[in-house]
Amino acid sequence: MSEPQVEAPNFINPSVPEPTLRRLPGYLCYFQSLQQNHLKYISSSVIAHAFKIDPTLVTKDLSYTGVKGRTKVGYSLETLIEAIVQFLKFNQQENAFLFGVGNLGKALLQYDGLRQHGIKIVACFDIHPKVINTTVAGLKVYPLQEFRDLSRKIPARLGVITTPDNKAQETADLLVAWGMKAIWNFTPQSIKVPEKIVVVNTNIYADLAVILHRLKQS
Amino acid sequence: MSEPQVEAPNFINPSVPEPTLRRLPGYLCYFQSLQQNHLKYISSSVIAHAFKIDPTLVTKDLSYTGVKGRTKVGYSLETLIEAIVQFLKFNQQENAFLFGVGNLGKALLQYDGLRQHGIKIVACFDIHPKVINTTVAGLKVYPLQEFRDLSRKIPARLGVITTPDNKAQETADLLVAWGMKAIWNFTPQSIKVPEKIVVVNTNIYADLAVILHRLKQS
Repeated sequence: MSEPQVEAPNFINPSVPEPTLRRLPGYLCYFQSLQQNHLKYISSSVIAHAFKIDPTLVTKDLSYTGVKGRTKVGYSLETLIEAIVQFLKFNQQENAFLFGVGNLGKALLQYDGLRQHGIKIVACFDIHPKVINTTVAGLKVYPLQEFRDLSRKIPARLGVITTPDNKAQETADLLVAWGMKAIWNFTPQSIKVPEKIVVVNTNIYADLAVILHRLKQS
Repeated sequence: MSEPQVEAPNFINPSVPEPTLRRLPGYLCYFQSLQQNHLKYISSSVIAHAFKIDPTLVTKDLSYTGVKGRTKVGYSLETLIEAIVQFLKFNQQENAFLFGVGNLGKALLQYDGLRQHGIKIVACFDIHPKVINTTVAGLKVYPLQEFRDLSRKIPARLGVITTPDNKAQETADLLVAWGMKAIWNFTPQSIKVPEKIVVVNTNIYADLAVILHRLKQS
């Protein structure tokens, strides 16, 4: 129990595969629920069974966080949870600006889950007079034209786009122009940005297409 | 112009690949925004450039909807839009029940985008007395125990899970027991269901993990 199980938890491996990154939050959630049920250790085969993947893949995924299982004992849940949270930086806070305070934008502003996972939305913007100057989740909605000034006052590297689809590209252009390093695009519109900018698309319509198509066949 | 361009738009191809399904809503959104800008035709190479994929892949994706481009003219945007909407059944309505009226659940209830894309949430459920009997987006929030009765009165095949993570599995069990055919899981918790049940996971934490990790490196 006193043996060090975490090796270099802050180790940044530039080659960590995206599928691994995408699986880690799911593992984390699973481990936390097991810990709530007073479990202390878990084996890679049990994890593999829960996620319907191969145990060797589980071992490989977890190795990126620096954690190693111990023969017969398995992984310590406490160590795993701590290592994944640190690895994903869910315990730090990345400031973000949000653009488009419609239903989806409001939902994200009110969503505690983001803050619990390392994202703090520090300002939000819209272009509609009805929305501007209202307060959502304690944040004042600014007119879009104030973004330039605020981006110089409040440090933030991440822009969240929850605008209507046809405003996504021009919003992205504005964010890039004013120094944002990453864009989280919630519209189904594909956006073009310079290569150095990180773009992640959350496309619930893609998920919807899969559901509706598979339902047709069942 | 009068030549038929849509061939068998209702053709159900069971082997349509998931990546194709996931790309179609993005194409749709792109075509609609071009049409709003009064464009009439588009070539596969222009589409390919916008989505940073190979033109042959675009042609293949679109062929599943029964649409064919014409030499030199390209694809008619109007035909493409109609064909994709029909193919994805975004113009029909699939009834859904929603479980867990927290921030994310509320957001989905209020989100017009779902209804515009073929999903109509017809009832919602929660277990917290504070939320039960309140009204969200015109829908009364029912106590979870009324689901069994309501599922016999209102036809619905899709269950949306927006509960806390640790309630996802038991909610899924209940949905399967009462005849739901598909589950849209918004929690990061992996759920187990019989094979015949369609499960689609929308995992915004996975997207978050990718953003935070890439930002670290930039």
